[in-house]
Amino acid sequence: MNLPREIRYRAYSDWTKDEMIKIKDNVKRSPWRVSYHIEPKTGLLNDPNGFSFFNGKYTLFYQNWPFGAAHGLKEWVHTESDDLVHFHVTGAELLPDTKRDSHGAYSGSAYEIEGNLFLLYIGNVRNENWERDTLQIGAWMDKNYNITKGENVLIHPPADVTDHFRDPQIFNYEGQLYAIVGAQNLEKSGFIKLYKATDNNVETWEEVGNLDFDGTGSEYMIECPNLVFVDQKPVLIYCPQGLDKSELNYGNIYPNTFKICQSLDIEKVKLVGASEIQNLDYGFEAYATQGFNTPDGRALIVSWIGLPDINYPTDKYDYHGAMSLVKELSMKDGKLYQYQVEAITSLRASSEQFTAKAETNNTYELELTFPPNQKLELLLFSDSKGNGLSLIVDTKEGKIILNRSKAGIQYATDFGTIRECSIDTKETIANIFVDNSIIEIFINKGEKVFTSRVFPEKHQNGIQIKSGEPTGKYFELKY
Amino acid sequence: MNLPREIRYRAYSDWTKDEMIKIKDNVKRSPWRVSYHIEPKTGLLNDPNGFSFFNGKYTLFYQNWPFGAAHGLKEWVHTESDDLVHFHVTGAELLPDTKRDSHGAYSGSAYEIEGNLFLLYIGNVRNENWERDTLQIGAWMDKNYNITKGENVLIHPPADVTDHFRDPQIFNYEGQLYAIVGAQNLEKSGFIKLYKATDNNVETWEEVGNLDFDGTGSEYMIECPNLVFVDQKPVLIYCPQGLDKSELNYGNIYPNTFKICQSLDIEKVKLVGASEIQNLDYGFEAYATQGFNTPDGRALIVSWIGLPDINYPTDKYDYHGAMSLVKELSMKDGKLYQYQVEAITSLRASSEQFTAKAETNNTYELELTFPPNQKLELLLFSDSKGNGLSLIVDTKEGKIILNRSKAGIQYATDFGTIRECSIDTKETIANIFVDNSIIEIFINKGEKVFTSRVFPEKHQNGIQIKSGEPTGKYFELKY
Repeated sequence: MNLPREIRYRAYSDWTKDEMIKIKDNVKRSPWRVSYHIEPKTGLLNDPNGFSFFNGKYTLFYQNWPFGAAHGLKEWVHTESDDLVHFHVTGAELLPDTKRDSHGAYSGSAYEIEGNLFLLYIGNVRNENWERDTLQIGAWMDKNYNITKGENVLIHPPADVTDHFRDPQIFNYEGQLYAIVGAQNLEKSGFIKLYKATDNNVETWEEVGNLDFDGTGSEYMIECPNLVFVDQKPVLIYCPQGLDKSELNYGNIYPNTFKICQSLDIEKVKLVGASEIQNLDYGFEAYATQGFNTPDGRALIVSWIGLPDINYPTDKYDYHGAMSLVKELSMKDGKLYQYQVEAITSLRASSEQFTAKAETNNTYELELTFPPNQKLELLLFSDSKGNGLSLIVDTKEGKIILNRSKAGIQYATDFGTIRECSIDTKETIANIFVDNSIIEIFINKGEKVFTSRVFPEKHQNGIQIKSGEPTGKYFELKY
Repeated sequence: MNLPREIRYRAYSDWTKDEMIKIKDNVKRSPWRVSYHIEPKTGLLNDPNGFSFFNGKYTLFYQNWPFGAAHGLKEWVHTESDDLVHFHVTGAELLPDTKRDSHGAYSGSAYEIEGNLFLLYIGNVRNENWERDTLQIGAWMDKNYNITKGENVLIHPPADVTDHFRDPQIFNYEGQLYAIVGAQNLEKSGFIKLYKATDNNVETWEEVGNLDFDGTGSEYMIECPNLVFVDQKPVLIYCPQGLDKSELNYGNIYPNTFKICQSLDIEKVKLVGASEIQNLDYGFEAYATQGFNTPDGRALIVSWIGLPDINYPTDKYDYHGAMSLVKELSMKDGKLYQYQVEAITSLRASSEQFTAKAETNNTYELELTFPPNQKLELLLFSDSKGNGLSLIVDTKEGKIILNRSKAGIQYATDFGTIRECSIDTKETIANIFVDNSIIEIFINKGEKVFTSRVFPEKHQNGIQIKSGEPTGKYFELKY
């Protein structure tokens, strides 16, 4: 939703209690609040930030403008989890409250150092002519959730970038701390800058160079670059806005992609042996994915279920966006797999054999097997009139097709209503998570993933089997 | 090593400073101390205990008699880790210092409850006629490592067990806390008792029944039962002492085994759909494996590298036993995999192409590929006279053979000097971890595992390629 600038950049302290009550009441009216995903209490949620392991728990912040469904003056909101499934808001917030982040505490990452969590993020600053400066700044959070901001700008935009220079990700490679930053160069192509913490002091950074990942530069900006290590291989996850579609077939307004590499050569500032670019998610919305390696070496990712520059049906209820389930990355036969963490099964409140259902509470998991050499179709969020979200699993042609043209309230239809991907022509397993207005589909234990929103109308809560005979289980989920 | 009872059960306070200095000096003389495994500072280490996630870190205790290489008056020694690779001793100990554990704080498990760690363990008690009582008792450890013991015996041996009744493992199943205990019945067969914490209060336990896991009862005692959940399936890991070899082919004095089950039916006290019994490890020593599920649902295990009733070459240096690397369990095509945690790669100090080597520091990892349809042989811990530990990877016949008949100091030869297992006849990957006097071999990313000790003589530190041409990498490891 587009709101006037003076509303979007109004100081937090200027919002009255009465206004906040109204916003909260409006949120409550929504028929689409989710149960086991993170969504904002009020306002707009976008990128995951500072996803990390701190003080023995998983930490995940999210970008939030709390006053409506628009991209306004952003803060970070802190959540914490023991099991990567149940996250709770701790009350800690990184506010846009200094002259170095006067127009937004924008996205960044976090890393635990000697018992405190270091946050490396973007201070978004506008001058009176509304010209932008993007400053890389730091803050520390202690174990009691007190946040103290640093006094200095840690990285100023270098000479070879425009004002699109953001999303620093801090990571450890062989005992040295590095950061990569998404950027646009003066020719308006996307690229990634690599920095290094001098003597591992995260308050002093030096440029290493422009990271060579065998990209073509057909995108105009790279957002949210992440380097994680999976089975010892560097995996670059990034959002190349405007990527030429001859390079990669993608349906959403902006793609969310990855490359599997063979090694990282710091001296050459190069990801050696980078694969072709691939889609990370085949659904209608999963963006700004953030990943990190845990102290014991696992690679975890989480995404914003939402996209920039898109309006959502929840906007009128003064909120927008949600966080995806956390996925653990693994490598199998050279392919990247994303699977939901084991603890997600703790949500299962009851279990029964899968059959069609006239009504559900739209809060369930299906674990289904699709036999080889068949074309099967399910209708989820279905009603008695034949509306619903169509999922075709075609093990004959080797295809998955998700069609939301008849599913609930329509939006973002400029970008099509069908998403698909290819699969092997053999027995296929799907774990499908439905959460009121979110669907996440894991094909063959994370070989392919579809993340999407669906905004069903009243009574669109059935499951129909349009063709074929998938078998498996239906689990009611309870947070 | 067998020592007189009066030495083994001498009170901890009776050991003088001078005696401890002598023991420590003797340990220092050993040429076989390891670098990246846990071993006791002094004395005998046996079972892993209380393996758990507590206060944001991994906790692992080990059984220890600190005064020599014998099974004496045991305590628990606490270690802690952020990454499952680097463990450090915190100083916390569960001592045999009450009348309920007067003859040993024997094995048990741990579970975090509301910010404290609950330890459920065996108080070993002997009366003046040296008759044994095994009491299930409890203790609490707080975040400052203070241990407070409970006043009550939580579970007395029931009427249907002999004095072999031990190794309680506490676990959470669908929100309810249970414990399983290894036992011998009055007919001298092994079995497992299932208990339940009444109202989830871990200081009150009620018997549920004898756990049916489709066993034959050919063993005379079951030690160290563990139930962990892997990919939602219960996996029972246990040590059935005296198991009939017609039931399972095993080489060591006591087997270390598992069954994969389909579900746990509490009402019927039954593990439904239990598989055949299988060896957990194919090496010369891996015993008393302990496992648990992390808060986010992963299943981790660790084993004692050692066996009961066996003397080791280190015994004369007043120590004995080590802890294996931690392994994460997963399920692939219905088979159980055990793989080292990703963070183990942080030990890699340098990397080179694999070739034969006249000398190494015996502290390295090999990551090797063995082509299909060939029989290859490596000699590790080798010397110029052709001695060494032989590893044959036969991708023609589908076999792995480990032969230590010419490897270092010989011991436990009554139980043979060869261990083997079958593999598929295709390209095979091995990750081999050598640590001075320990070798751990992971075949095909944990499909099969060999854990063993080797006590090389001086200059037995080479790597020879006896036949074939395996390719891969050599990593020097540094803790």
